[in-house]
Amino acid sequence: MAKSPQTQLPLKAFGWAASDTSGILAPFHFSRRENGQNDVTLQILYCGVCHSDLHTLKNDWGFTTYPVVPGHEIVGVVTKIGNNVKNFKVGDKVGVGVIVESCKECECCQQDLESYCPKPVFTYNSPYYDGTRTQGGYSNFVVVHQRYVLRFPENLPLDAGAPLLCAGITVYSPMKYYGMTEAGKHLGVAGLGGLGHVAIKFAKAFGLKVTVISSSPNKEDEAIKRLGADSFLVSSDPAKMKASAAMGTMDYIIDTISAVHSLIPLLGLLKLNGKLVTVGLPNKPLELPIFPLVAGRKLVGGSNFGGIKETQEMLDFCGKHNISADIELIKMDHINTAMERLSKSDVKYRFVIDVANSFSSL
Amino acid sequence: MAKSPQTQLPLKAFGWAASDTSGILAPFHFSRRENGQNDVTLQILYCGVCHSDLHTLKNDWGFTTYPVVPGHEIVGVVTKIGNNVKNFKVGDKVGVGVIVESCKECECCQQDLESYCPKPVFTYNSPYYDGTRTQGGYSNFVVVHQRYVLRFPENLPLDAGAPLLCAGITVYSPMKYYGMTEAGKHLGVAGLGGLGHVAIKFAKAFGLKVTVISSSPNKEDEAIKRLGADSFLVSSDPAKMKASAAMGTMDYIIDTISAVHSLIPLLGLLKLNGKLVTVGLPNKPLELPIFPLVAGRKLVGGSNFGGIKETQEMLDFCGKHNISADIELIKMDHINTAMERLSKSDVKYRFVIDVANSFSSL
Repeated sequence: MAKSPQTQLPLKAFGWAASDTSGILAPFHFSRRENGQNDVTLQILYCGVCHSDLHTLKNDWGFTTYPVVPGHEIVGVVTKIGNNVKNFKVGDKVGVGVIVESCKECECCQQDLESYCPKPVFTYNSPYYDGTRTQGGYSNFVVVHQRYVLRFPENLPLDAGAPLLCAGITVYSPMKYYGMTEAGKHLGVAGLGGLGHVAIKFAKAFGLKVTVISSSPNKEDEAIKRLGADSFLVSSDPAKMKASAAMGTMDYIIDTISAVHSLIPLLGLLKLNGKLVTVGLPNKPLELPIFPLVAGRKLVGGSNFGGIKETQEMLDFCGKHNISADIELIKMDHINTAMERLSKSDVKYRFVIDVANSFSSL
Repeated sequence: MAKSPQTQLPLKAFGWAASDTSGILAPFHFSRRENGQNDVTLQILYCGVCHSDLHTLKNDWGFTTYPVVPGHEIVGVVTKIGNNVKNFKVGDKVGVGVIVESCKECECCQQDLESYCPKPVFTYNSPYYDGTRTQGGYSNFVVVHQRYVLRFPENLPLDAGAPLLCAGITVYSPMKYYGMTEAGKHLGVAGLGGLGHVAIKFAKAFGLKVTVISSSPNKEDEAIKRLGADSFLVSSDPAKMKASAAMGTMDYIIDTISAVHSLIPLLGLLKLNGKLVTVGLPNKPLELPIFPLVAGRKLVGGSNFGGIKETQEMLDFCGKHNISADIELIKMDHINTAMERLSKSDVKYRFVIDVANSFSSL
């Protein structure tokens, strides 16, 4: 008989889980493994609320196993280390992102691209190699192999820094891989949400000129005055956009829109050799017009979150440039309301759960 | 009153033109300009028959101005040069490709990317800056600004070399730009026609492993034994293709298919970081699934024909590696039959018109 989540593993853990496709989160007792020789245990302090959490709760992608504790933007303090752990000590501030295990042997793992390992173990809603399930950061602690633990820069706020672990690396990695970092070049950021607003900050740190492309005209002021974008383009009127002086002026676009949308106006904004890189995950194919690709030698590329080495590089870059997310800090018992608001994109720009202070009374 | 094509310009010329959307070609008297100070006049010896010629004849793209003399894979011998022409002399064997004029001032022209100049003058069916129309290589001679004239390598056959001027540069340029030239890497060539068969030859010269992806199983023997491909994959059975051991093995694919087709199986053939570069021009958008792009950090890029400097580099590369096209040489009066066969992809792999010998009795 299969053991229950509460007793399957030796350590008692507590978090909030969804039990069905309603996606409603509720208190949940479960269990985690003992800290092994290569493991780091961290008490969770903060956890960002990613749009993937919401998709998983609702089983939007069709592969959720309930009950599921979401959360993969985890910041915490080390409470235990295994004998083989040399790079972390008790008391260190650390982060855990999207992945907590990979095969370590494939070409991807060998090249520090664990994020592309064909046998990834994600931080939640994923089976470990021994068949037990991962549960995420909406919980009091987590045990993670040291390879997947990130050192958190001293100067960054722990709460506003949490979203860097997924939102941050998901835009930083393609900017680096596709070479979207050349100072003075013009970047379009399509979609101003959790990913887009961090992309602006990276872009300004790289010295880029940034134009936000958004369907919400009321975001203009904030994009420019608060987030530091250079200009703002309303994408909801195709005719106006087509006539815009911005057409043909962008070197790169990072497309963070996860809804199905047209690529034609975005491709039109690009210069010769322009690059449109998509990091959103629309659940249906997009229409790709070939003529503008050929006539302008343009490309449409994709990118997943980055590997561990690059995630550390990104965190260090954020430390150096004082980059963190703009967040709304919530207590755990506010999470269902937050999810409802997130489903309407009503958040500036990331909810972060104050995990430790939510559970302190336990 | 507008002058007639026959008398508009001072030099009497002769070729074959289509007069309406039937696309039927018939003998046609027209005129060309005098050889200017920067011009080279060439007697046309051979002209390749490109699929673009057929599209233009039938007005498939909606911008044909009749009467139109097609042909932009021109090889000829220099018969006259202007005073400012230093790099060519009478008697030289030369080529003219897709473009005969550009603005020479824009960023593209300054960077030897005349093929991306926003004001290009194509070799046929295009207005010169003075309003007169260009007419192509299905004709006895042509007058071209020296910048757009290519030196033809001594050792290449003039007839089989003609298709290099469009088919050749159209696959060579993306292979160079997208870095699809690293020896030992695995290239898929989708579509085995005029472009695809030259792509195989370039790829083998670069030291790549080549797999042809074609919907015609009967092309396998030829692709491997005659053209030197390493393997062959039949694309017409999606289930078989999905189960193929070739999935996830290719570093790059050059997609020469001009019909609307699915990108999903092609993206599946690519490895992590794989590049799918399309040079065909389907007249409708293709469906682009985003998930494989993101999960495999893959890209779909486009490319037009190359600039003049790169076209010369390509010709010199062909001279060095003895690369030319596999052709069927025809006389001009066979052209309408050839076009009919071309419309059914019934050609191995390029028709070339023996222009000089077709017109010798005139």
